[in-house]
Formats: sequence, C-alpha cells, structure tokens
Amino acid sequence: MTYCCSVKINEGMVFGCDSRTNAGIDNISSFEKMAQFCNEGERFIGIVWSGHLGITQAVMHEIENSIKKQEENNILIVESMWDVANLISLHLRQIRHNLNYLNHSGIDTSANFLVGGQIRGEKMRLFMIYSEGNFIEVGGQVPFFQIGETKYGKPILDSVIELDMPLRKACTCVLVSFDSTMRSNLSVGLPIKLFAYEADTFIKPPIYHYDENSQYFDNISKDWRVGVKKVFDDLPAPF
Amino acid sequence: MTYCCSVKINEGMVFGCDSRTNAGIDNISSFEKMAQFCNEGERFIGIVWSGHLGITQAVMHEIENSIKKQEENNILIVESMWDVANLISLHLRQIRHNLNYLNHSGIDTSANFLVGGQIRGEKMRLFMIYSEGNFIEVGGQVPFFQIGETKYGKPILDSVIELDMPLRKACTCVLVSFDSTMRSNLSVGLPIKLFAYEADTFIKPPIYHYDENSQYFDNISKDWRVGVKKVFDDLPAPF
Repeated sequence: MTYCCSVKINEGMVFGCDSRTNAGIDNISSFEKMAQFCNEGERFIGIVWSGHLGITQAVMHEIENSIKKQEENNILIVESMWDVANLISLHLRQIRHNLNYLNHSGIDTSANFLVGGQIRGEKMRLFMIYSEGNFIEVGGQVPFFQIGETKYGKPILDSVIELDMPLRKACTCVLVSFDSTMRSNLSVGLPIKLFAYEADTFIKPPIYHYDENSQYFDNISKDWRVGVKKVFDDLPAPF
Repeated sequence: MTYCCSVKINEGMVFGCDSRTNAGIDNISSFEKMAQFCNEGERFIGIVWSGHLGITQAVMHEIENSIKKQEENNILIVESMWDVANLISLHLRQIRHNLNYLNHSGIDTSANFLVGGQIRGEKMRLFMIYSEGNFIEVGGQVPFFQIGETKYGKPILDSVIELDMPLRKACTCVLVSFDSTMRSNLSVGLPIKLFAYEADTFIKPPIYHYDENSQYFDNISKDWRVGVKKVFDDLPAPF
C-alpha cells in the first residue's frame, strides 16, 4: 500500500508520498511515486500516485515520452491545469484498456493520481484522478486530497488544515498525517518525500526526504506522540 | 456503516458502539448494536456488532431464543467464554448459510461481532468473530478490537491504550476514538453507547448514552480538538 496526500492552501501546495510498495509481506520495496514538471516562470506541475505500479509507471512513461517527443498534447504545452489532469486521465484510461487481460487475473489494477500546480494566467489547481480515468478538482471547504491508505491520516488533516495557514505548517501537518498512518499500518513506511510549491512562483521547489535518520521527522513524531498523550491524560474521565 | 470497539485491560473491559445504520444517504436510522447477558455473581457477557442488520439481528434472535428455551447450548450455560464465542459463530454461520440466496443479489452480507466478558473460574476474555464465522481472541500486545469503520479511530487507541491504565481512562479513550471517527466519516454518528465491565465483579455495568445533548461528550470533544491543535501549533516547521 501507499499513502499520498496533497494540500492546496492560499500560500501554496504541499505534496507528500511514502516510498513503500508491497506485494506481500516478504516483498517490500521502495519506488518513486512523485514527479515534478516545470517550465520555469510559466508553469509548475506536481504529481503523486498510488496503486498498481505497472500501471502508474506506464502512465508516467507516456507523460514523459510525449514531452520528449514534443507531441502536441503534452503536459508542458497544454493550456490549463484542467487539460493537464485530462491528459493524464486519458493516458490512464488507455493503459488500463490495453491491460484488460489483467482483469481476469484477479489482480487489483486500481491506480490513482493527484496532480496539481499552476500555469501562468491561472490560479493554482489540484485534481484527483480516479482509477476509472475520471477526475475531480479540490474544493475550498476541504482543501486536500488523499490516495492509497487514506483513513488513519485523515483526522489530523480534518483538524488543522485551513486555507490561511502558513505553507510551512501545512508541511508539518502532512508529515504528522504520515506519522499517524505509519504507526497504524505497516504497509506505509519511510522514507517520505515532500515538497511545497509556493503560489505564483512557477519554479520547482526542493524535494525533502525523511528517512530513519531524519532528526526533524523523529522530533515531530515524538513531540506529537508525547503532546497528544498529555492532552489525553488531561481529559476528564466519564465517571 | 457502524463503528464498534472493545478494550480489555487489567482493570476490566470497555465496549462501545454507535447507533447509526445507513442504507444510503437518505435512509439513516438508529438501531441497537449492543447487548449484555448476565448471571449475577457467575458470568457477564457483552456483545457489540456491525454489518448487515438482517444477519446480526437474526444472530441475536437465536442467542436470546436459545436462552429463553433453556437450550443445552446457550451462552448463559456453556462452560467458557471460548464456548460463548464459538456458539455465536455457529449461529452466524448457520444464518449466513440459510441466507445464501442473498449472495447473488450483490448485497454485502458481512457481519462482525465483538464478544467478551468473564465466567467465574476464568479470567476476562475478548473475541472478534469474523463474517465467515471463525474468530480470534485478543492478544496482550494490542488489547483491543475494532469492527466496522475502524481506521479513523485507531491512531488514538494505538497511542494511549495500556494494560495498566485506569478503566475510566480507557472509556475516555474509546470515546475520543469515536469522536475522531465521526469527525472524519458521516456514516458513524451519535448516540454512542458505552459500558465498562469491572474485572471479577460478575455484574451488569450501567450503559452510558452520549447524544447531542451530552455535556461530557461535548466537553471532551472540544478539549481534545483544542488540545491537539495546540500540540500541532507547537510543532516546529520543517523549513
């Protein structure tokens, strides 16, 4: 399983993913599940994905290939972020259609993408692409999307994500959401990758890695655990 | 959906369930999902359930019927808590077998039970019965079971449940677990019912109800939200 999360607030967007892929307990590996595309000064696009690795890698191959071949429809050329989401959806539908021999194998061929970013002339936009190849855009009330193993990490997002919070604090929140998920589900694991796109900059932000040796992740994980325990200890008992 | 949770710690056992049942957004109702059985001074048995209401109600009917008819195999007579769990499992298997015409309807016929308690001569025991009619007993390392909509409320249980905590605090933890679940998933809702069996008492504990007018539940829900937000605000940002 995988966990990916994207948040769109006023100051910018945060993208996070873990790197674990498993096909059974004795077959756990790390793979890329995050990409950035950029025409500096004109557009920035971030993508994270979960699901069947054969399918998500094939989709990413098509995206990169169409850029390399300078095809008319590639995500660095199309007009809007909506077109970017639509293009990835088309690739996904095509690839899943070609792989329909897998349908009879009982293999789970679900594959989800979160794609967001900004093209000059537009505001930032964030989309979630379903396995079926249709997609939705994030709303103002709940300004985040999750894919993969989503439930354990949702309460913290529900509690603290606000449109006017600082971008750096939204990063902290995403990391706590990963911490909760990893604590309750072994199939999501370190390293975590994260980047934060700052609104209206149209540049590639740095990608941060958090692994077993990350002092920062270790600190917030401990502070969070101790702090939450303290809040709990202070709650009155019901009788 | 439903959420049920049972915890077994040294001081006793806690059982909690919500009361919401839905068959689509426009058809949400409240039903019983909790029962107590007791031979005062000799045994106490608590049961909570989730899943297909037609099946869980039929199982509970069989359990009550066999007590009423003083059948040889009823849960107030059998020797051990293991026998109690086994008996409920047998009812469940029988009922699902009889209802196998439903299998072709596409209806989800899953049904789960948590059953725990104590019979004089035994320690307290807690079991989870799967839809298929097999069951497992709770272990020492993770001394709780959840059924239904389990994931949102798991992180708090993972964080604070300990074997040597006071029974009253375990009740608080179960209520916070419900609060997290309800906040992230509309299909689980108030009222919540909860009782706490004190080890070696062999008596029926009172059942507490928490609904929209419950001052206590409202208080811990607010204190928890504010406290957790404060812990989050104090975490350092990653850059």
